[in-house]
Amino acid sequence: MKAAILRSGRMVVGDVPEPVPGEGQVLVQTKACGICGSDLHAAQHADRMVALTREAVESAGGATSLYSFDPGRDMVMGHEFAAEVLEVGPEAFGPPPGSTVVSMPVVADQRGIHAVGYSNDYPGGYAERMLLSAGLLLEVPNGLDAQRAALTEPMAVGVHAVNRAGIEPGTAALVIGAGPVGLAVIAALAVKGIEPIVAADFSPRRRQLATAMGAHEVVDPNEEPAIQAWRRVDGQRPLVIFEAVGVPGVIDEAMRAAPSQAQIVVVGVCMETDHLQPFMGITKELTVKFSMAYDPMEFASTLQAIAEGRVDVTPMITGTVGIEGVPQAFADLATPDTHAKIVVEP
Amino acid sequence: MKAAILRSGRMVVGDVPEPVPGEGQVLVQTKACGICGSDLHAAQHADRMVALTREAVESAGGATSLYSFDPGRDMVMGHEFAAEVLEVGPEAFGPPPGSTVVSMPVVADQRGIHAVGYSNDYPGGYAERMLLSAGLLLEVPNGLDAQRAALTEPMAVGVHAVNRAGIEPGTAALVIGAGPVGLAVIAALAVKGIEPIVAADFSPRRRQLATAMGAHEVVDPNEEPAIQAWRRVDGQRPLVIFEAVGVPGVIDEAMRAAPSQAQIVVVGVCMETDHLQPFMGITKELTVKFSMAYDPMEFASTLQAIAEGRVDVTPMITGTVGIEGVPQAFADLATPDTHAKIVVEP
Repeated sequence: MKAAILRSGRMVVGDVPEPVPGEGQVLVQTKACGICGSDLHAAQHADRMVALTREAVESAGGATSLYSFDPGRDMVMGHEFAAEVLEVGPEAFGPPPGSTVVSMPVVADQRGIHAVGYSNDYPGGYAERMLLSAGLLLEVPNGLDAQRAALTEPMAVGVHAVNRAGIEPGTAALVIGAGPVGLAVIAALAVKGIEPIVAADFSPRRRQLATAMGAHEVVDPNEEPAIQAWRRVDGQRPLVIFEAVGVPGVIDEAMRAAPSQAQIVVVGVCMETDHLQPFMGITKELTVKFSMAYDPMEFASTLQAIAEGRVDVTPMITGTVGIEGVPQAFADLATPDTHAKIVVEP
Repeated sequence: MKAAILRSGRMVVGDVPEPVPGEGQVLVQTKACGICGSDLHAAQHADRMVALTREAVESAGGATSLYSFDPGRDMVMGHEFAAEVLEVGPEAFGPPPGSTVVSMPVVADQRGIHAVGYSNDYPGGYAERMLLSAGLLLEVPNGLDAQRAALTEPMAVGVHAVNRAGIEPGTAALVIGAGPVGLAVIAALAVKGIEPIVAADFSPRRRQLATAMGAHEVVDPNEEPAIQAWRRVDGQRPLVIFEAVGVPGVIDEAMRAAPSQAQIVVVGVCMETDHLQPFMGITKELTVKFSMAYDPMEFASTLQAIAEGRVDVTPMITGTVGIEGVPQAFADLATPDTHAKIVVEP
C-alpha cells in the first residue's frame, strides 16, 4: 500500500507491506491524519529522539517498546488519525466494518505495546491502512467528519496539560506559543471557563487562530512582553503559564517573567539542552510541571467535546494533502506563519 | 558594639553603631546564631545575589526592600538566631526583658520590611545586639537553650520544603545532599513519618548526620547512584526527590534519574545558570517545585517541635565560635566534611 515514509531522515512516498490484523487487532482505512510537530522533530532528529526516549524510559524503570524505533529502518509516522474499520481480526471485539473510529495511537501485540506512528512495524496514519487494537477504538459520534475527528489526539494534549495544571476559574492563563499545541491548550482552557486567556505568538495568523480558539487577548512578543499583556488585562489573579513552544530559552523566560507562586506547565516538546536560573524559581517559589500526552478518559472526552461542538477545531485545519503531498507539507510546516494543522487524507 | 562584618566581600571583625529600638521594635542580646550557606554565597557573590534578587522581586510585581542590600556598604549577616530581650521600644508589645526569643529574620519600620542578616541598616546575629519586631517574637518554650532554639530557622526551611512537596506516608523520599538544608529536610520527613528516607552525600560525616536526623538509608554517590539506593531499598512507592545541594547539574541529574511522575523539590539555592533536558521532564511527566523559606506557622511549629524534643537538632551543631571566630568559621565551612552547623555565640 502507499505511504509517506521516513527513510534515513527524509520523507519519501513509496510502498510498504500491506498490514494484516493479528489477534485483537482491526485493519482500518485511514481517512484523515494530522501532521504533528513531533513528526517534524523526528524527521530531523530521529537519533536524538530515540536516544533521549530510551534514557527516559529506562530511568523511569519502564520496559516499553513505545517510541523505541530504529531510525535506520523505514517508518510510517502519523498518530493523529480518524479511520474506517475495514476488517476485524481474530479475537477482536470492537466496532464493525464501516464504522468511523479514532484511537489512542498505540497498538498491542504479543510483544508488547507499540506506538502507532513511531514504530518500524506498525504504520501510522500517513499510510492508506493501519492496524489498531480493537479494544481501544472509539466510534466517532454525531456524524462528525473524519478530518475534525482526527484532531482528537492533538486537542487531548491540551486537555491533559490543562488538567495537569489543575487550573480552575479564578486563575488566569498565559499561553506562550499558538501553534497546534498552544491552540489545543487555549481550547481546553476556554472549555473550562478560564478567564482571561492571554496568548502570545510572533505570527499574526497564529494570533488570529488563538482568538478563534478562545483567547481573550493576543499579543505579539515583539511589541509587548507576554507577561505585560497579562498584567495589562489582569495582573491580579493567580497565573498559570503554558509553555507551548518547545525551544530552548522559553522556560527560562517564563520563569524570569512569572509572578510569585506561579505555575509553569511545559507542554511544548524541546529535545535540546535548555538553561534556566534556579534562583528565579526559588525566590518566586515557582512550580514547573511537565505535561505529556493524555489518559484514555481525556482522549475520549476530547472526542466527545469536538463531536458535540463544544470545541470547534475547524479553524485549526489550514490545509489538506494526499499522501503524495506529505513531503511538501513537512517543508511547508517549517514556516509557522502559514499553517496550524495540515491534515493528510490518504 | 562588636560584630562580624561583611565588608567589600570579606568577613572582618569590628565595631558597628549601637542599635536603638524604634516604634514596635525591641533591642535583643544575640545568644546564638547559626551560619547559613546563603551567607557564604553572599560573602562570595553579593553582587550577583543582589542582582538576581532584584530581578526576581521586580518580576514578581513586588516592591519590597527585602534582600536589596548594597554590597558596597558594611553588612552584618546572621539570620538564624535566638536572643534575649534587653529593651522594649516605644509602642512595642511583646515578651518582657529577660525572655529568650526567636523570630523570623525580618524587622519592620516606617520604610518597610527589612531582612535581618541581609540589610545594611539592621545588623543580624553576628553582632552582639539586634533590633527585632516585637510582634514577630516567639518566646522559646520548655527551657530550650538558645543554641538549639537558633536552629528553628534552618529547620523551618526543611519543614516548608516537605509541606510544599505535599508528601504523605506511602511516598518515599530521596534527599540529595546532607548539608544543613538536606538535614533539615530529613528531620521534617522523619517527623512526618515518611519511609524510606534515602539520603545521598559524598561526605561520610554528613551521611552519619543524615542517619542521626532520621534517614533510613544513606549512600555515597561515588559508590552507588542515589537513585539505585532508593531502588534497592524501595523502588515501588511514588518518589519525591529533594535537591538540597544547590549547584548546577543536580536538577538535571535528578530529572534524568527520576522515575515517572516523580516530584523534584528544589530547596538548595543555586545562584548560577543551570541546565536540564526538558524532554526528560516531559517523557516522565515530572514536577519541579522550587521551595523558599517558610511561613510564620511553619516557623512557630518548628520551634515547638524542637522544644518538645520531637526534633533533636543537637547532632547538627558541630561547632561554636565567638564573634572573633566568624571569619575562620566561614573558611572552615568551605570544606563540607568537617561541619554541619557552626553556631556563633556573641
